[in-house]
Amino acid sequence: MKKIVLAYSGGLDTSVAIKWLKEKYDSEVIALCVDVGEGKDLEFVKAKAEKIGAIKSYMVDAQEEFLKDYAFPALKANAMYEGVYPLSSGLSRPLICKLLVDVAKKESAFAVAHGCTGKGNDQVRFDVSVTALAPELEIIAPVREWPMSREEEIDYAAKNDIPIPIGKDNPFSIDQNLWGRSIECGVLEDPWVEPPEEAFEWTVSPEKAPNTPTYIEITFEKGIPIALDGKQMPPVELVKTLNKIAGQNGFGRIDHVENRLVGIKSRENYECPASLLLIKAHQDLEHLTLTKDVLHFKYCIEQKYAELIYDGLWFSPLKDALDAFIDKTQEVVNGTVRVKLFKGNAKVVGRKSPNSLYDLNLATYAEDVKDMFDHNSAKGFITLWGLPTKVNAIVNSAKASK
Amino acid sequence: MKKIVLAYSGGLDTSVAIKWLKEKYDSEVIALCVDVGEGKDLEFVKAKAEKIGAIKSYMVDAQEEFLKDYAFPALKANAMYEGVYPLSSGLSRPLICKLLVDVAKKESAFAVAHGCTGKGNDQVRFDVSVTALAPELEIIAPVREWPMSREEEIDYAAKNDIPIPIGKDNPFSIDQNLWGRSIECGVLEDPWVEPPEEAFEWTVSPEKAPNTPTYIEITFEKGIPIALDGKQMPPVELVKTLNKIAGQNGFGRIDHVENRLVGIKSRENYECPASLLLIKAHQDLEHLTLTKDVLHFKYCIEQKYAELIYDGLWFSPLKDALDAFIDKTQEVVNGTVRVKLFKGNAKVVGRKSPNSLYDLNLATYAEDVKDMFDHNSAKGFITLWGLPTKVNAIVNSAKASK
Amino acid sequence: MKKIVLAYSGGLDTSVAIKWLKEKYDSEVIALCVDVGEGKDLEFVKAKAEKIGAIKSYMVDAQEEFLKDYAFPALKANAMYEGVYPLSSGLSRPLICKLLVDVAKKESAFAVAHGCTGKGNDQVRFDVSVTALAPELEIIAPVREWPMSREEEIDYAAKNDIPIPIGKDNPFSIDQNLWGRSIECGVLEDPWVEPPEEAFEWTVSPEKAPNTPTYIEITFEKGIPIALDGKQMPPVELVKTLNKIAGQNGFGRIDHVENRLVGIKSRENYECPASLLLIKAHQDLEHLTLTKDVLHFKYCIEQKYAELIYDGLWFSPLKDALDAFIDKTQEVVNGTVRVKLFKGNAKVVGRKSPNSLYDLNLATYAEDVKDMFDHNSAKGFITLWGLPTKVNAIVNSAKASK
Amino acid sequence: MKKIVLAYSGGLDTSVAIKWLKEKYDSEVIALCVDVGEGKDLEFVKAKAEKIGAIKSYMVDAQEEFLKDYAFPALKANAMYEGVYPLSSGLSRPLICKLLVDVAKKESAFAVAHGCTGKGNDQVRFDVSVTALAPELEIIAPVREWPMSREEEIDYAAKNDIPIPIGKDNPFSIDQNLWGRSIECGVLEDPWVEPPEEAFEWTVSPEKAPNTPTYIEITFEKGIPIALDGKQMPPVELVKTLNKIAGQNGFGRIDHVENRLVGIKSRENYECPASLLLIKAHQDLEHLTLTKDVLHFKYCIEQKYAELIYDGLWFSPLKDALDAFIDKTQEVVNGTVRVKLFKGNAKVVGRKSPNSLYDLNLATYAEDVKDMFDHNSAKGFITLWGLPTKVNAIVNSAKASK
Repeated sequence: MKKIVLAYSGGLDTSVAIKWLKEKYDSEVIALCVDVGEGKDLEFVKAKAEKIGAIKSYMVDAQEEFLKDYAFPALKANAMYEGVYPLSSGLSRPLICKLLVDVAKKESAFAVAHGCTGKGNDQVRFDVSVTALAPELEIIAPVREWPMSREEEIDYAAKNDIPIPIGKDNPFSIDQNLWGRSIECGVLEDPWVEPPEEAFEWTVSPEKAPNTPTYIEITFEKGIPIALDGKQMPPVELVKTLNKIAGQNGFGRIDHVENRLVGIKSRENYECPASLLLIKAHQDLEHLTLTKDVLHFKYCIEQKYAELIYDGLWFSPLKDALDAFIDKTQEVVNGTVRVKLFKGNAKVVGRKSPNSLYDLNLATYAEDVKDMFDHNSAKGFITLWGLPTKVNAIVNSAKASK
Repeated sequence: MKKIVLAYSGGLDTSVAIKWLKEKYDSEVIALCVDVGEGKDLEFVKAKAEKIGAIKSYMVDAQEEFLKDYAFPALKANAMYEGVYPLSSGLSRPLICKLLVDVAKKESAFAVAHGCTGKGNDQVRFDVSVTALAPELEIIAPVREWPMSREEEIDYAAKNDIPIPIGKDNPFSIDQNLWGRSIECGVLEDPWVEPPEEAFEWTVSPEKAPNTPTYIEITFEKGIPIALDGKQMPPVELVKTLNKIAGQNGFGRIDHVENRLVGIKSRENYECPASLLLIKAHQDLEHLTLTKDVLHFKYCIEQKYAELIYDGLWFSPLKDALDAFIDKTQEVVNGTVRVKLFKGNAKVVGRKSPNSLYDLNLATYAEDVKDMFDHNSAKGFITLWGLPTKVNAIVNSAKASK
Repeated sequence: MKKIVLAYSGGLDTSVAIKWLKEKYDSEVIALCVDVGEGKDLEFVKAKAEKIGAIKSYMVDAQEEFLKDYAFPALKANAMYEGVYPLSSGLSRPLICKLLVDVAKKESAFAVAHGCTGKGNDQVRFDVSVTALAPELEIIAPVREWPMSREEEIDYAAKNDIPIPIGKDNPFSIDQNLWGRSIECGVLEDPWVEPPEEAFEWTVSPEKAPNTPTYIEITFEKGIPIALDGKQMPPVELVKTLNKIAGQNGFGRIDHVENRLVGIKSRENYECPASLLLIKAHQDLEHLTLTKDVLHFKYCIEQKYAELIYDGLWFSPLKDALDAFIDKTQEVVNGTVRVKLFKGNAKVVGRKSPNSLYDLNLATYAEDVKDMFDHNSAKGFITLWGLPTKVNAIVNSAKASK
Repeated sequence: MKKIVLAYSGGLDTSVAIKWLKEKYDSEVIALCVDVGEGKDLEFVKAKAEKIGAIKSYMVDAQEEFLKDYAFPALKANAMYEGVYPLSSGLSRPLICKLLVDVAKKESAFAVAHGCTGKGNDQVRFDVSVTALAPELEIIAPVREWPMSREEEIDYAAKNDIPIPIGKDNPFSIDQNLWGRSIECGVLEDPWVEPPEEAFEWTVSPEKAPNTPTYIEITFEKGIPIALDGKQMPPVELVKTLNKIAGQNGFGRIDHVENRLVGIKSRENYECPASLLLIKAHQDLEHLTLTKDVLHFKYCIEQKYAELIYDGLWFSPLKDALDAFIDKTQEVVNGTVRVKLFKGNAKVVGRKSPNSLYDLNLATYAEDVKDMFDHNSAKGFITLWGLPTKVNAIVNSAKASK
């Protein structure tokens, strides 16, 4: 019998999809449950899939792989879509696709399936990532394809003994992993409405945060965080710790009217305590260790990198080439950044590095420090720097005379 | 007798320069005192210049011109050097140069003079801006040219009856105007040291800010702020009010290891309550009103714009062309942004616009809203969007097989 | 009865479309025949449309509008897709759409129609341009929608008394206007095959071009060509003359493996004698008249501009903003360029301008010319220019020691 | 005794410099003669240096190193300054500096010296490259520093028994290596004057080139040329052969009004038969093998790369990072390009590659080829592609109504 591997979350859509795929495609369905730090009970999800009708259920704790191979490369790029959003969802999708393809190959499945709708960015990320990794695999998106409304879906579930989540619905649509938590829908769809407190789970409101600041020191090696307050820490522990500390101090909330790939704007809210904090600290360390040329040119690399992730092109030749650029720049991004967390703020208040390009002797105005800088060079520099302006002013008549 | 027009601040350097220029160049010195919002006593400064030996002293209140013609164009560009600094000093220099050149022409002076040293960015901005406006004028930078140490300068002042500022020295070097206040030197030169509270004057520390948030609404027209909380307000009053409100809430401090034009890194601190707040609000309104294409392309325009200002090229053909681009985009940047200020935070919590491109009907997942968006289009879109990836995967062997 | 306005070329596809649209949509069809310099017999085309069944037929000579409002703005941008192709087809589509919309409004039509297939770029340009101008209009693409193969189409034509072009088929697919002629299909689809001579109509092969060179002088005003060999000439005459002169000298052939918007590569050949020549001359004049800053930054504007046109986004806010930038830069692009045409070459051999920023006194090494350039400034300049490199070398250990 | 290593060309300036350096710095002078393909008699140059007074003379044939480590990386970047000039001089300078530093370290010299004047780009390239490699070395530029006019220099030579080149002066200033030949000064300084035939040595005029075309096939591996007409060929032989073949066909002349780093424009002429030809062929192969994303983004990398070389920043962290990007993209740039050379033209007329992304099945309109491309996908694609335009048109009132 033909096989389909389904990315299974345990929610209503993918639960219904197990049954629907079996019927529609006359196939066996294999569920794949991936943990990228949502904090869900994987054993329960795995059992649920099998109970509904999956012939087999895979569980993968992909938290470390997620950080090392997806989130940290994005951190080195300071990747924030539209300068605002650290791409938490966009980063987990290619990893899930890689795992889907791995299982599909192992199980000789003809297709993979995912639970994305036809209006978001995630469908693009799933479809394109799978295509990049295994162009021969079919890709099925049940929710995009079936004609059921929400009510019909619930009816379908009831008729097929598929457990329906009970109790009051979460008024929001949530996606979360170690790099952040996204909150959509409900009252948030009106961009004039302030997000209510109930939307947030990882961060307290700044008003309720502690009345005294928390100072932390993050140490980076080649652009990657390796220690907290001087103590070496593996990636998952480090990011979980930072999510907790920053969240407790009310830091990490994002409110964004965002341009989706599929041509529309949407209003998104996020909680990204660890990722935002790490990016801030990493940017600051780059200011200390990168030359001006590298720093200024890297901005356009960073923007393109963030757009690629957002647009589902993680597995693409351009992404690989951008990574090569970024990795080269990170060789000197070593050092420690000191951050003050307080009631919603995270401010870098100190930074040091063995690769610091800040030279006190050069920068200071103080007289008691020996001065390497030749004041007279400045005049020569300015003469040539301003020469094109001068020629232009003479030729095209001075501005002032207009 | 030959005449020199000196940009006069009332401080020691430019006071000494009045005497020094007279002697060295055998010329009459005309002082120009410009108010761009430093809050200094212009009458006192004017009188001081004349007492020291200036044959004439001009006073110009340039606050409104500064905002309208320099700061607000930069706001439309969201201009922040290295993504961090709103360029307060960089924006006032070209205005002062324009005024210097105006007076020089009126007085038939052969030269203008300024008090910049040979190590900072400002000397470049002065020299190049004057050149752009009046390439025939000589430019003299006494502090860069004279061979005096600080002690020798004080001796020179004493010998020449030039008043020396008394009392405890400010441990920092300060420059300020309506768009921000920069703080350099002293303990701040060590980038690992947290800036002490005494460095700040415009902002309270977040710890000392009020325990309840302040909400404000800023209204923009073509990218320019025109009203506060629904009340029309002229530029100077609006910016002063925002500096006060935001400063009282502890918002606006910047700590930056910055790449100077003259080849070195320096550690800079700034207080920019109003300018940072306005840029944040303006960026958010752009997210609502600009198409994705414009928004994403504008980033590279903005970066170049900020670099141009920083590098002293305000009066340059490239700056004019960038302005034309930016002004065109701002035609639709109309609307109101709601900001919550609280203990160092300024968060945009709502935005609305007659030119909003956010369409609830398109973006929502909710079923009770009529759905213009054709779910089926998504599949076609993704097929073509992913086609280059597919062809590449087939030709260059799928990634997964590596 | 409902009305549809069809962009009518006189060829088989749009001829069949007249009948097909009438039947399928139960509507009256109004034909619009636009002349953008293809050199076709508009009267004949108009009559043919009516004979086949159009209730009315519009003829528009849009040659001058095409050059003034579409091709010349692109010339100011030196717009060449992928650095190679002057976008002749991409530029005519928005104009045709504008005319379609004009007629549709005048005739109160509910839809416009065009003859594009589902695989090229033109369908995108038509659909998006019409949407931008009149989002309320329906857009119908019969060839994309009908299920007919080429043979079925010919059968359909025969059954419906639609004239079928007789004689030997042109082995290529052609589109042409004043800005160029594109040649696709047939043997050209193999990118290893050299284009045969029979593909070309506007250019002789370099081997057959005259044995003596032709020199011409083109004069530009604000980036627009206004005179040939010192004689003022209106746009259409000037471009037609250049197409002839350059074509006779074998200049203007392009062979390009090109990335279509719809995700595939295609091999395209073009003949663009006038447009290529004008772009070459215009670029050269910009080298003489633009400052380095403007020239270097304009490259990224130009690339985006070319992509926008190619991608069907002529009527978009980003295009408007780019135009504003470009127009500002062109104020000084005045002057005359001398070009030598010879057997496939067009070489700029001289250029002059009242706005020339080339200053013989500054550039020359010759001793008999007075030297404004201060040789000593160079040393100061280099010291600061190289300072970041020096600090980096000291901190991160000199390269040579690796 | 202290030692200085001088980059020695055998010309008047560096010959005089041997004596001048000895006297002025009371040092021993070691001459370094590097062959990067100028075709000069190195043995003669070496002997001349010693005769004039150098205590030692090094000869280095650096032709292969020049191509492999400098010119070919630039080829992979399609590096052309201002889109025009393949940077022949700019590429050889860092290599000469590397060799200077090697000798200086071996000989424990305190300084290196070069013969650049104070007005060109080369002084910057020398000074900054040496600084990057050995920040502790002093750099001396005798011609920039001595106060001698040309006549005084000749007198100085005469008095010191330094041979003065006899016969009619070359009316031009020449620099040449395997990557090209630059020609400056004399009548060329007037940008309106057509370069006279006597300026050129490597290329015949198109008029005098053969009357029948020459076809060649160049094979690339990872972006590097490895074979000519199917025959493997080492770099130096391949480039020399191409310089000859292309030059004989009149191809490779460049006429450029160029923006120097030191703030001025200059008019430059070049002969670059091999380098221009290789770049053209390489670009074409990239069109066949790179995805659109990579190709389009690489343009901005290429521009920055060319500027870096021009500006003397070959040895810089940004250059290293750009190289990493470029090398990654070149992994698939394999294949063969067929070029037709004829009377000044070099036209690519065919290209093939095992990594070709051109797919006949996808691109063709022909019906006899099976069609993988789903025509219906196009409609969905265009709907979403045009959606932002549509929303913008509805919100901001359709363009046509203006």
